[in-house]
Amino acid sequence: MNAARLHAYHEALKLEQVDEPKATGPLDVVVRIGAAGLCRTDLHIQEGQWAENSGVQLPYTPGHENAGWIHEVGPAVSNVEVGDTVIVHPYITCGLCRPCRAGDDMHCVNGSFPGIDRDGGFADLLLTSARSVVKLDPSLQPKDIAALADAGLTAIHAVKKAIPVLGSGTRAVVIGAGGLGHIGIQCLKALTATEIVVVDPSEPALELARELGADHTVRVEAGGSHVDAVKELTDGAGAEAIIDFVGEKGGIEDGIAMVQDGGFYYVIGYGENVNVPTIDIISREISFIGNLVGTYVDLEDLMTLTAQGKVTLHTSTYPLDAINDAMNDLDNGRLQGRGILVPA
Amino acid sequence: MNAARLHAYHEALKLEQVDEPKATGPLDVVVRIGAAGLCRTDLHIQEGQWAENSGVQLPYTPGHENAGWIHEVGPAVSNVEVGDTVIVHPYITCGLCRPCRAGDDMHCVNGSFPGIDRDGGFADLLLTSARSVVKLDPSLQPKDIAALADAGLTAIHAVKKAIPVLGSGTRAVVIGAGGLGHIGIQCLKALTATEIVVVDPSEPALELARELGADHTVRVEAGGSHVDAVKELTDGAGAEAIIDFVGEKGGIEDGIAMVQDGGFYYVIGYGENVNVPTIDIISREISFIGNLVGTYVDLEDLMTLTAQGKVTLHTSTYPLDAINDAMNDLDNGRLQGRGILVPA
Amino acid sequence: MNAARLHAYHEALKLEQVDEPKATGPLDVVVRIGAAGLCRTDLHIQEGQWAENSGVQLPYTPGHENAGWIHEVGPAVSNVEVGDTVIVHPYITCGLCRPCRAGDDMHCVNGSFPGIDRDGGFADLLLTSARSVVKLDPSLQPKDIAALADAGLTAIHAVKKAIPVLGSGTRAVVIGAGGLGHIGIQCLKALTATEIVVVDPSEPALELARELGADHTVRVEAGGSHVDAVKELTDGAGAEAIIDFVGEKGGIEDGIAMVQDGGFYYVIGYGENVNVPTIDIISREISFIGNLVGTYVDLEDLMTLTAQGKVTLHTSTYPLDAINDAMNDLDNGRLQGRGILVPA
Amino acid sequence: MNAARLHAYHEALKLEQVDEPKATGPLDVVVRIGAAGLCRTDLHIQEGQWAENSGVQLPYTPGHENAGWIHEVGPAVSNVEVGDTVIVHPYITCGLCRPCRAGDDMHCVNGSFPGIDRDGGFADLLLTSARSVVKLDPSLQPKDIAALADAGLTAIHAVKKAIPVLGSGTRAVVIGAGGLGHIGIQCLKALTATEIVVVDPSEPALELARELGADHTVRVEAGGSHVDAVKELTDGAGAEAIIDFVGEKGGIEDGIAMVQDGGFYYVIGYGENVNVPTIDIISREISFIGNLVGTYVDLEDLMTLTAQGKVTLHTSTYPLDAINDAMNDLDNGRLQGRGILVPA
Repeated sequence: MNAARLHAYHEALKLEQVDEPKATGPLDVVVRIGAAGLCRTDLHIQEGQWAENSGVQLPYTPGHENAGWIHEVGPAVSNVEVGDTVIVHPYITCGLCRPCRAGDDMHCVNGSFPGIDRDGGFADLLLTSARSVVKLDPSLQPKDIAALADAGLTAIHAVKKAIPVLGSGTRAVVIGAGGLGHIGIQCLKALTATEIVVVDPSEPALELARELGADHTVRVEAGGSHVDAVKELTDGAGAEAIIDFVGEKGGIEDGIAMVQDGGFYYVIGYGENVNVPTIDIISREISFIGNLVGTYVDLEDLMTLTAQGKVTLHTSTYPLDAINDAMNDLDNGRLQGRGILVPA
Repeated sequence: MNAARLHAYHEALKLEQVDEPKATGPLDVVVRIGAAGLCRTDLHIQEGQWAENSGVQLPYTPGHENAGWIHEVGPAVSNVEVGDTVIVHPYITCGLCRPCRAGDDMHCVNGSFPGIDRDGGFADLLLTSARSVVKLDPSLQPKDIAALADAGLTAIHAVKKAIPVLGSGTRAVVIGAGGLGHIGIQCLKALTATEIVVVDPSEPALELARELGADHTVRVEAGGSHVDAVKELTDGAGAEAIIDFVGEKGGIEDGIAMVQDGGFYYVIGYGENVNVPTIDIISREISFIGNLVGTYVDLEDLMTLTAQGKVTLHTSTYPLDAINDAMNDLDNGRLQGRGILVPA
Repeated sequence: MNAARLHAYHEALKLEQVDEPKATGPLDVVVRIGAAGLCRTDLHIQEGQWAENSGVQLPYTPGHENAGWIHEVGPAVSNVEVGDTVIVHPYITCGLCRPCRAGDDMHCVNGSFPGIDRDGGFADLLLTSARSVVKLDPSLQPKDIAALADAGLTAIHAVKKAIPVLGSGTRAVVIGAGGLGHIGIQCLKALTATEIVVVDPSEPALELARELGADHTVRVEAGGSHVDAVKELTDGAGAEAIIDFVGEKGGIEDGIAMVQDGGFYYVIGYGENVNVPTIDIISREISFIGNLVGTYVDLEDLMTLTAQGKVTLHTSTYPLDAINDAMNDLDNGRLQGRGILVPA
Repeated sequence: MNAARLHAYHEALKLEQVDEPKATGPLDVVVRIGAAGLCRTDLHIQEGQWAENSGVQLPYTPGHENAGWIHEVGPAVSNVEVGDTVIVHPYITCGLCRPCRAGDDMHCVNGSFPGIDRDGGFADLLLTSARSVVKLDPSLQPKDIAALADAGLTAIHAVKKAIPVLGSGTRAVVIGAGGLGHIGIQCLKALTATEIVVVDPSEPALELARELGADHTVRVEAGGSHVDAVKELTDGAGAEAIIDFVGEKGGIEDGIAMVQDGGFYYVIGYGENVNVPTIDIISREISFIGNLVGTYVDLEDLMTLTAQGKVTLHTSTYPLDAINDAMNDLDNGRLQGRGILVPA
């Protein structure tokens, strides 16, 4: 089959023929890839930033945001059949450890992550597990929903954690209306009654945010006037929650300045440090909540919102053999919406 | 009446005669002080660290950890009578703002804090509000419980927030078994089934921790072997919760190393910064929870635990006119347990 | 002033002149009534059903669903001023007992209930407390929002309790789309992502439900086919939550048949008994949740939803001196929407 | 192998030789039974009360409370090995349906229940699943812990649900200190700070309750004085929670009279109806919470409490071939503690 593989860090991926994976284990599932989303993490992988953390051996196939159709199933698989349309949860989990049994499968102690630490979905076929596929309505097109498998999953996971603090009369500040953020806004709209304030340096991003239901949008300005604008929109007190899809470029200091005393700061984007005096954490009683992708149940919930028309995606499609063009476009800010790779 | 007042930053308090406060407002309450706890924050006040933040005008009377007997009540007070034994919640709250109505009175938007931004309890009498006094069994002695009004309240507030993550089979690491920590250990013991691991550099503190119910104690060592010891006690995974009563002296880095993926770090002690890469917050899904003193209901709960014999205090008593000796002893590490000032 | 007073059970109310109430206590507030909602409970009061329970002495003035303008305030009132537009929370609470301090003021142990156990709002003026008034935008008209003070408050309170079980992909069955139910549907729509199924015997009520956002409506049929219809709409499993605004006329058995195993049944309407074998409660793990009016914070939340245009009311207005006509209309099913009394 | 099988309702079980079960499925596990608990449900099965509900075909082997050692494993089993000591969760679950993925495996939509709807543990060997076994310390004896697999599991599940309402200063009334109740008391003691009031007609049961940590015990009296006694112990207000392990013999009416306004009634024992006017549910805002056995995680938690010495069992042991004697003893009230069957 075809696969786009990384042979050396800092080099382009190489399109080549490799052996097809087989469903040899009882719960194995092979998915014929219909579409694979391209993520900034794929650039970081290419640059070698994950080399040590993932321990992956080169060459291998990236691609952790996948959807397609069931191609082959192991002997104990009962939840899907060959031909079913599926979206692929990015983590392969054991189902037997304490976190899996408690419904917190993102913390499976025996898990693996195709596209990060083993072969992923920039290929014709992907080996995963019966536990990692969500069966979809056959009318859904993989290219229209693949980006929900990671970007969308991460966004809904964070928003679900914030529901208890986002009752009516509250305000949530979304930092960043890009790939994750534009899904996060839709999840907030669907799942809470909070007033949504979106902060972003890009006017088109803010326009998209307004179309998707943001109640207020504030453009990031070099002088920091956006912080004052948000304070004004929140009666001078700040917002009950900050949902930060950026995690760098000065956004963290801004976010801390915009959160209400007693409020919560959800960390989703990454890049820089949270660096805050403990006396501020205490005297203001503010909390910082980490968020790691999402559970299988979160992905099911997101697919429900999608089926109900409450979440839609903005994407740009490339054929799989144009993967390096897509990565260049992403790296140079030329990619509108989420990039989607489609095998020939 | 007598009061120990601060006339200038960096100078000793001055014992002097001042006018008695009067219960002029409808919900005013004047408490005859039976005992006032001495807190490290009082040293910080003397050093001027709170000058800007509190905006207090000198001279004034510190002392924010008070218990005694009702001396006078305003015309609308119905919950206490002259002569009642009371412990004094440190914050005076309005009862009408949104946080007060929601039971989150520590975030009252109209509050004031005797001993910090107005006259406190290093005196014969203290002016506070009907909303700030908890009526106690008359057999209780103010000197035995005054330290619960702030140190104890802060400890139980943090422990109550941690209850949902401290089910059976979990582990909590308590950093620091001093004034707050030794109460925190007792609250954890009373309110949860977690296994308690206490970390402290002082062997006598660890011995006290064991007496109070710690399941394991680990001495802080310069080389950091205590972190490894805690990891070993927690199956290599780290603890579900870190309850940090120190917040400085390198404890934060240790705490982050000792918390489990998916776990929670409760910030109570203060001094240094939480400084952590967002990629660690996300890839490990760890959260940092701020804690600010505690609510009126928290103080009631603590008094219940005390009445049940589940929380006891270690104290050293000084007459009020020895306040500067007590402050010197505290500053120089000569004060065993919590220092308690008792008016003549 | 004018008041409509009950002099004897089973008799019409009597319009008469009575003394004006005065704000003598420190937190007293006198409200000039702009509008008072008429509730089925007022008919029950007239019939003597509450005589024993309330202990009220005749003659007195009913009316527990009130809005208007501040007319006079006691000396310690700081949250409202004469002339402010307010909606009146129906319960007068002490602010000092444990439930009040915990934010659960509907369980105040020192409370009283104007219109039930003391003079209410079918009059020109009403005596209540600073703790019971929510200040509103002056542009709001009392007649447009008075019915939110009790009917609306009860609906939002129940819906807020159901939020944790009504995530995306869930279904809520609303039994009854009348006075409370039509507000409940709007609250569900605003506060959750659940799919709303409304069950009612009246086609106009179902039409209103659809206009207000119900996803499915099912007409109650004598043969019980509506239960099958709801089962079919919920994959044969039943709904995660039943929100029962009726509590009689066979609805309870229907509701139990329509709730999913592991689900929740919210009891709001009253009349008949919940009568269910414990073996069913256990083998199906279903729970029955009681709901009593709502807290002050619930009322604030509802006013926020109203200000945002997410909750609107259907009403019919009568002058106060037509109170007996209004009561007759209500009793005979001739009253469309909630009845509202307006003093001359 | 030996098995005690039911050939006809209302007849004694028959000891006979049957084929040994085999681990043919990938996640199958065969457990060599070390001990099987005897439950009142086994009497109900013999009497045919479960015939319709379970749909089981006679003859078959009851026994749903099992512990022993792994005898054989299917090819995909990775969490246990032959020889491991295990306790057996009573439900066999699929691991793939929504409830399983959410950690709520007791509501698995593809589950089966050995001893109820297929062959159980009154035999030398039991066929179950890798998902249903909890690996234990090899020093544990199956006969000492088998009764935790169902009686204990049910008790801890209910207590865990009650934790959020059982903070310090609260009271829980335990109705019934028998097989389940005596474990429930220990779970309450270990997991909460509530004051425990135990109500039972048997003086020896109350004595056991006191030994296990009950704070107050009240003997059930025909005249109902126990209800008054409990009200007196709870300041006239009643308890925050009723934990009812009986569910019959008039206990339900008593329980409703003993619960505080705003409180919770946990239904665990079964037999009679909950029959309560909706006006009482509403005006008192009381809730009834169903409880069905417990999850795999609940069973792990219980084994942790047992390993910590916080939960111990009172049992009477019989050889498996004396099963009918044991059932007669249970039926006639001659069985002290939980009856345990041990294969030869």
